[in-house]
Amino acid sequence: MNKQRLASDPPDQAAGNGLMDRRHLLAAAATGSVAALLSRPAVAAAGELAVEPWMQEPGSPFVGYGQPSRFEANVVRVFTTAPGTTGTGASRTPHHLLDGTITPSGLHFERHHSGIPDIDPVRHRLLIHGLVKRPLVFTLETLARYRMESRIAFIECGGNSGALYQKDPVAGGVQALHGLISCAEWTGVRLADLLDEAGVDPRAQWILAEGADAAGMSRSVPMAKAMDDAMLALYQNGERVRPSNGYPLRLLLAGYEGNMNVKWLRRIKVTQGPTMTKDETSKYTISVPDGKALQFVFPIETKSVITHPSPGLVMKGTGFYEISGLAWSGYGKISKVDVSADGGKSWAPAALQEPVLAKALTRFRIAWHWNGGPAILQSRATDESGYVQPTRARLIADRGIRTIYHFNGIASWAVGESGEVTHVHA
Amino acid sequence: MNKQRLASDPPDQAAGNGLMDRRHLLAAAATGSVAALLSRPAVAAAGELAVEPWMQEPGSPFVGYGQPSRFEANVVRVFTTAPGTTGTGASRTPHHLLDGTITPSGLHFERHHSGIPDIDPVRHRLLIHGLVKRPLVFTLETLARYRMESRIAFIECGGNSGALYQKDPVAGGVQALHGLISCAEWTGVRLADLLDEAGVDPRAQWILAEGADAAGMSRSVPMAKAMDDAMLALYQNGERVRPSNGYPLRLLLAGYEGNMNVKWLRRIKVTQGPTMTKDETSKYTISVPDGKALQFVFPIETKSVITHPSPGLVMKGTGFYEISGLAWSGYGKISKVDVSADGGKSWAPAALQEPVLAKALTRFRIAWHWNGGPAILQSRATDESGYVQPTRARLIADRGIRTIYHFNGIASWAVGESGEVTHVHA
Repeated sequence: MNKQRLASDPPDQAAGNGLMDRRHLLAAAATGSVAALLSRPAVAAAGELAVEPWMQEPGSPFVGYGQPSRFEANVVRVFTTAPGTTGTGASRTPHHLLDGTITPSGLHFERHHSGIPDIDPVRHRLLIHGLVKRPLVFTLETLARYRMESRIAFIECGGNSGALYQKDPVAGGVQALHGLISCAEWTGVRLADLLDEAGVDPRAQWILAEGADAAGMSRSVPMAKAMDDAMLALYQNGERVRPSNGYPLRLLLAGYEGNMNVKWLRRIKVTQGPTMTKDETSKYTISVPDGKALQFVFPIETKSVITHPSPGLVMKGTGFYEISGLAWSGYGKISKVDVSADGGKSWAPAALQEPVLAKALTRFRIAWHWNGGPAILQSRATDESGYVQPTRARLIADRGIRTIYHFNGIASWAVGESGEVTHVHA
Repeated sequence: MNKQRLASDPPDQAAGNGLMDRRHLLAAAATGSVAALLSRPAVAAAGELAVEPWMQEPGSPFVGYGQPSRFEANVVRVFTTAPGTTGTGASRTPHHLLDGTITPSGLHFERHHSGIPDIDPVRHRLLIHGLVKRPLVFTLETLARYRMESRIAFIECGGNSGALYQKDPVAGGVQALHGLISCAEWTGVRLADLLDEAGVDPRAQWILAEGADAAGMSRSVPMAKAMDDAMLALYQNGERVRPSNGYPLRLLLAGYEGNMNVKWLRRIKVTQGPTMTKDETSKYTISVPDGKALQFVFPIETKSVITHPSPGLVMKGTGFYEISGLAWSGYGKISKVDVSADGGKSWAPAALQEPVLAKALTRFRIAWHWNGGPAILQSRATDESGYVQPTRARLIADRGIRTIYHFNGIASWAVGESGEVTHVHA
């Protein structure tokens, strides 16, 4: 393995300094000059700028609701469905074609158990009942009168990255392997406010949340989470929640595994214990090697993935590239992301894009000078509690390989001499 | 005017406390009980929940790029165009139907001078020339190799709210009167990095930025801003910038008046002084009463607008409502928003939704008990420098009324006894 040069920026990218002042080469890699990092053969000298056809006549008219450019038609979710169905399965976010931290709502990943219901918001009701003093029914109109709050939060399916438990690396890139995570600004009503109004019986330790889809997807949620930061989300990235994400309202349990964030929410039942619904089997659990599973471990573990470069993107020529990716933790904020270009032998800290928010995607970035030799790219996230994302080998030692859930091990992309990027186990 | 009760929350809405513990009534309004604030006649007692048709058969299938619910077809931009054109004019964001701070990209306001060009990103070029050592031409592919950064930033047209200079109140609501502002997460390359690479002549104090639309819209920008936080934005809310917002790249000058954030950017010319283009006339300036104008005052002044309730939304019954709105400043962070329900006689501090970011929209919220009497709602923002949003009267005393630009005075919504909300001058 050739030494690959990494350069790291200080975390405060908001400062107004230029590139050269703020780039510190790794001590181990400081043999090259900063100028070398900046050499980009593809930058042409200035010539005459063409006056393209789109400058020669008026452009297209206004529309009420805009769409992406027709040249971005390949930026779509890919989906797989259960045999014989069109709406039971999952769709995945193309993170290799995106940047920043917000996932546009049209590309937010989905996991549906019986398609997307077409809910009339005027007829939709939310019932809160069970161990409460006053059972309550809410219309959308009454919910809209409560105080709202907003938070940027990721949602990740418990099955995301599950293929990485397999012995041999699966062909695929960020979208196929890690596309079941997205991030949005969610706005809605605190569940605690409604539970307070209903009057929760002190014996109640759990709630049941049920969706209005044909599958009646339902999950049990600890009361502590319901009273902490659970939200009934009405808005997603500013507008009403999309049908594919629970229109007209979904439960948002920031940091908890995806399907507990029940979409199309119609019912909250306050209960003494967990309900053990059809959706609470060995699925969505954490396996241990003896064949058993830890059922009620809900938060998403600290994790990171490099999105650029990644499979499907081809490196064209040696020189400077930005390595960039996403890190997240269901337990709080990301405090550090280290990046390796030599399969984990050496690491350099990446810059974290501010603001770093708890239970939200955090974008990390680091400069890399590719010398044209083979390389293995990895990222390793640490959260504010000090927990460090484990190696894949460590995770598999703890859990075995007969599961697809809650994989948060370090993932590896190999860069070949041709510039091709592929998924490997390293 | 009847006294209207306001309740304020502490700014830290992230804490996990319940509603009642955290709501402090205004001293002047503390005659009502908290329970009264919570009474909501529209909350029905629990009955049988209907099993609606959408629960009785599988829902709709997956699609690659999702859209809003068909029940939200009214959530669209409205637009006006110059006579004889379809693409010269402006479209406005329906903030009265949105919540949170991110504007979905399909609803981001637009101001076009000759429609939306249909730019092929493979053919598009960015030229940097003028007073530089090395003129450079960039393709999208070469730009993508530079380090990126992300920031959430508003863009506001210098003409937003311009109708409020007029002597008589104009019929309209948030969208018609204040819809030329939006907010997104923008990701791209620092302009300073490219200027450093080109090598700026020390005599250069300005740049010219030119778009690739048929109007060749162009503006002069001080070099200090170009080297501070100017960005060449490639991504908007995670995906490639929308055509209506400058695909494949736009200039982002966070906090500066809208049209300086040149869309479809094709050329940066480094210059000694401002270029005085056809787009730099008395338009987009700040008027003073003697008929003259301050031409080069670029930052957007501190401002706020109440979005809920606002014209077009009808108050249904007395009791608790959340007053919510947006505040922003081109100079930095919002530090405080006060809200009045009696036309400015008394004020109470609203809660600011964290994270409060510089040059981004900040959502404020405050509880209000409407007693059914007439009320006049106002909001007043203060930024981190201590600058306080002026009254409309004060602003007009400084600037006169023969302008439509840079209006940032306090706006007023009247609530009538019928619950109707209208625009008034107060």
